[in-house]
Amino acid sequence: MSSCIFCKIIAKEIPGKIVYEDDTFIAFDDINPQAPVHVIIVPKEHIPTFNDLKESHKEMVGHLSLVVNKLAEIKKIQDPGFRVVINCNPAGGQMVYHLHVHLMGGRQMAWPPG
Amino acid sequence: MSSCIFCKIIAKEIPGKIVYEDDTFIAFDDINPQAPVHVIIVPKEHIPTFNDLKESHKEMVGHLSLVVNKLAEIKKIQDPGFRVVINCNPAGGQMVYHLHVHLMGGRQMAWPPG
Repeated sequence: MSSCIFCKIIAKEIPGKIVYEDDTFIAFDDINPQAPVHVIIVPKEHIPTFNDLKESHKEMVGHLSLVVNKLAEIKKIQDPGFRVVINCNPAGGQMVYHLHVHLMGGRQMAWPPG
Repeated sequence: MSSCIFCKIIAKEIPGKIVYEDDTFIAFDDINPQAPVHVIIVPKEHIPTFNDLKESHKEMVGHLSLVVNKLAEIKKIQDPGFRVVINCNPAGGQMVYHLHVHLMGGRQMAWPPG
């Protein structure tokens, strides 16, 4: 059994407000949202950090960009706009060590981004 | 002649502090850095926004993840950590309408990300 919270959501062992799922990714609303729209997108493969992405993940990462745009469409934030954020390791603010993407929108995003 | 400032940097018509370049991407230091390391990564193809990424860009986006990690290595921020940010359209904070990625590190990144 994995102790990773995102692996548990993927396995439906713990609940998540899932807004999208395909063979490679699952997306759910952040439980501590920082914007009216705040979705977490995770690969089903347990990849700890962005640093761990290799040549073999290129197809998956390419597909990710289409998943993000699909979610922006579902959440109706494509035209007003959105921010995509990935944190890697402690200084980046990564809290869960299963690679994930934050998709945020529904308000004006400020600068700097944290 | 393109009026896009990033296209001009790619064409070397205006200077940029270029830190990486390959056939598909160019990366340069942000002229208004928000962290000790703040690099802008742009595809050489003029793609206005993240919304414009299509199936045909999957290979390019996959390669982008490896370019980000290469730059994190060059800038020595892989282990402490870094944040990757992409802004799309006005509410996302996009200022230049040529798709670009912000790679930030060298300090503790805060939450929320803007």
